[in-house]
Amino acid sequence: MEELVDSKTTDSDLIMQITVLREQLIEHVNHVFKAVSSRTTIPILTGIKLVASKEGIELTGSDSDVTIQSFIPNKENDIENTSIHVPGSIVLPARFFADIVRKLPSDPVSIEVDSRLMIRITSGASEFNLNGLDAEEYPHLPTIWEEQSFNIRTDVLKHLIRQTVFAVSTSETRPVLTGVNWSIQNGKLKCVATDSHRLAMRTIDIGTNEQLDEHSVIIPGKSLNYLAKIFDDIGSESVQIIVTDNQILFKANNLQFYSRLLEGNYPNTDGLIPQETKTEVVLDTKIFLQAIDRASLLAREEKNNVVKLKTIDNKSLEILSQSTEIGRVHENVDAQEISGEEVRISFSAKYMMDALRQIDSDDIKVSFTGAMRPFLIRPNEEQDILMLILPVRTN
Amino acid sequence: MEELVDSKTTDSDLIMQITVLREQLIEHVNHVFKAVSSRTTIPILTGIKLVASKEGIELTGSDSDVTIQSFIPNKENDIENTSIHVPGSIVLPARFFADIVRKLPSDPVSIEVDSRLMIRITSGASEFNLNGLDAEEYPHLPTIWEEQSFNIRTDVLKHLIRQTVFAVSTSETRPVLTGVNWSIQNGKLKCVATDSHRLAMRTIDIGTNEQLDEHSVIIPGKSLNYLAKIFDDIGSESVQIIVTDNQILFKANNLQFYSRLLEGNYPNTDGLIPQETKTEVVLDTKIFLQAIDRASLLAREEKNNVVKLKTIDNKSLEILSQSTEIGRVHENVDAQEISGEEVRISFSAKYMMDALRQIDSDDIKVSFTGAMRPFLIRPNEEQDILMLILPVRTN
Repeated sequence: MEELVDSKTTDSDLIMQITVLREQLIEHVNHVFKAVSSRTTIPILTGIKLVASKEGIELTGSDSDVTIQSFIPNKENDIENTSIHVPGSIVLPARFFADIVRKLPSDPVSIEVDSRLMIRITSGASEFNLNGLDAEEYPHLPTIWEEQSFNIRTDVLKHLIRQTVFAVSTSETRPVLTGVNWSIQNGKLKCVATDSHRLAMRTIDIGTNEQLDEHSVIIPGKSLNYLAKIFDDIGSESVQIIVTDNQILFKANNLQFYSRLLEGNYPNTDGLIPQETKTEVVLDTKIFLQAIDRASLLAREEKNNVVKLKTIDNKSLEILSQSTEIGRVHENVDAQEISGEEVRISFSAKYMMDALRQIDSDDIKVSFTGAMRPFLIRPNEEQDILMLILPVRTN
Repeated sequence: MEELVDSKTTDSDLIMQITVLREQLIEHVNHVFKAVSSRTTIPILTGIKLVASKEGIELTGSDSDVTIQSFIPNKENDIENTSIHVPGSIVLPARFFADIVRKLPSDPVSIEVDSRLMIRITSGASEFNLNGLDAEEYPHLPTIWEEQSFNIRTDVLKHLIRQTVFAVSTSETRPVLTGVNWSIQNGKLKCVATDSHRLAMRTIDIGTNEQLDEHSVIIPGKSLNYLAKIFDDIGSESVQIIVTDNQILFKANNLQFYSRLLEGNYPNTDGLIPQETKTEVVLDTKIFLQAIDRASLLAREEKNNVVKLKTIDNKSLEILSQSTEIGRVHENVDAQEISGEEVRISFSAKYMMDALRQIDSDDIKVSFTGAMRPFLIRPNEEQDILMLILPVRTN
C-alpha cells in the first residue's frame, strides 16, 4: 500500500481544493445524479461536473435531454457549508461519487484535484483517489433569457404533472405524443397529454404577466417525471418557469432543472372533446375505483383489459368483466345521480383506473354521448381537470 | 349481463358453502400463497386447496418442495371467524384468489361451490365466478410422526436462519451445498452453511429430549428463506420442529410449514476450521463494516470484489482496494486489540460484509492463521456463532 504515499498530490499543483459539509454534499449530489444516465453515448455525461467558485459549489448532471444544476452556497442560515481554498472545476465519475458521498464517515469532506485531474476525497480515516475528467469538455448549458417567465406554487406544479403525464404515449411512432403540451394564453396554462386512446387535461391560472407571450411547447413526459421526483425532495414553495423555443427551465431555491422540448406540432385536441352529453352519472370516486379494480383482476388476463359498464334503472351501475379461462366478475355500484339515456359501454379498466387515481375529488361526474363516443370524467364540482377515454367495441 | 342469472348455482347441487371473515381469509391466504409458484410444472399446484370441515377452514399452498398449511378455526378469542353451511373442498386458482380476497369490499365473504366445480365468491355488491379444480387431485401431504420433535423460540429460529442461510451455495454443481446442514446431538442443534469459499455456523441448545435421536439433515436454503418470511408475520412465541428422513415440519399456531430435505451427505466441515491462531484482532463491528463497505465501492468494479487488509503496528488496520479505471480507496480502522503476528491478507469484500451483517454483537474478534489460511470472525465474547472466509491470492 506504499503507492498511496507516492501518489499524494502536493499543494503546489492543486487546481482545486475545497472542503464541504457531508450532508450538504449528499443532498445536492443526489439531486443532480437523478439526471445522469448510465446508458449515455457521450462519455463525459457519465460524470458530475463540480465548479467551485468564491460563492460556493455548483454541481451539474445531465443526460443531454435533462440537465440538473444544484448550488451549495458557502454560507446559508449562518451555517458554513463549504470553504473554497483553491477555486476550480472537475468532472467526477457520477455513480462512484454518489455512492462514495453517501457513505463517507465524517465531516468535513475534503476534495482536492491536481493538474493531472487526479481527485483525492478525504473524510475521517477514509481516502478515495479517483480519475477525473476535464470540466472544459463538459457540454455548456443553453443560455436562457429570464423575461419569458412565470411562477407556480410547487404543490400545484406537482399535481399538474401527475394529473397529465400518465396519459402520454409510450410509443415512438408519433414522438410529439410522448410529451405533454403546455400552452399559455390569456394568463392561463393548459396542459394536455394523450396517447390517442385517452386524454388528460388540466388548466391553471398563472396570473396576468403582460410580458408573457403566447406559447405552446411540448415537454417530454420523461422530463416531467424526473421533475416531479426532484420537487418531492426540495422544500421550495414556488417554482419559476422560463420557456424558450427549445428549452424549458424550472428554478427553485438553489436548483435549476433544464429540459429539452420536443419538436413538431401538437395535434389540436379540442375537437376530440364532446360538447353535448346524453348521460351523466355522479359517483363516489373511491367506491367506483375499487369496483373497477376488482373487475379488472380477471380482465387483465385478456389482452385488452376491457370491462363492460351499464346503467341500471337510473340508480346504479353494473360492471362486468370476464376471462374465458378463469371466470368472471360482476360489480354493482350505487350512483349518486344518473340522468339521461341508458348506457352500455366497454372500456379499458387500466385507463379508467389511471384517470380516477389522478382525481383527488371525493365525487366524479362521468359524461357519456353514446357507446362509441369518447366519454369524460371530471371532478363533480370542478372544471379545470378533464379526463377523456375512448370506448372499446365489444359484442 | 343476463348470463349471470343462468349460471347461478342452486342450493341443491352445492358441494361446499361457507362464509368467512375477510381479514381472516386475507391473512391465511397470504400465508399459503407464499408457497405457490407460478412456474410449476404440476398444474394443480397453481391453485390453493381449501377444505371446509366442522372445525374450520384449512388452506394449503405448495410448490412441491415447500408446502404451507394454514387453518382458520371456526371460533377464536370469542370471534366467529367462519360458518360452514356445507362442508366440502375445492382447489381455487391461487393468484386470482389471493388478488380477489385482498380487494373484497366487505364482510362476510361467502364462498359456494357447485357440483361442476364452479366457485361463486360474494362480498357486498361484488360477485366473482371462478373455475375450480377437484381437491381430490391435489397431492397429499407426507405423514409425519410427532415423536421426533423439539421446540425453538421463534426469534431464536429467525436469527438462526438469517445467520447461516446467506452462506449457502447458489450453484447447483454440488446440490447439498444449496442447503443448510442441521445436526442434532447431545441436546444441541448445529447449523452449518458453506458455498466452499466461506462458511457460517450457529449452535444452540435445544434442551435434553431423551426421545430425540441423533439427526443430520440438509434443509434447502430456499425453504429456510420462505420460513423466515412467514414467521415475520405470525405472532407465535415458539415453533415445534419435527424431523423425518425426507421432510421437516415447522408448526406454530395454526400454521404448518413442510419442506423437502436434500438428499446426499453433507461434507464434514469441522476440519476446515483452524484450531490455532497466529493473529487476533478485536474491532468495533459497525465501524469495520462501514470501512469495508466503502472500500468495496471500487472493488465491485473488478470481477472479484477483493480488498486488501494489513495490520499496522498492532494498533490499527489498513484496508485498500483499487480499480484500474476508476481509482482507489484507502481506509484506516483503529483496533481495540491486536495480538500476534503482522497480517497482510486479501479477501472478498462481499463475503466479509455478509458475515458482519449477521453478527449482532457490538465487537468482533477476527482470528488469522496466515495469508493463505481461512480466517474466522466471531462475536468477541460468544462462541456459538462462527463465520469463516477463505482468503484470495493477490500480488
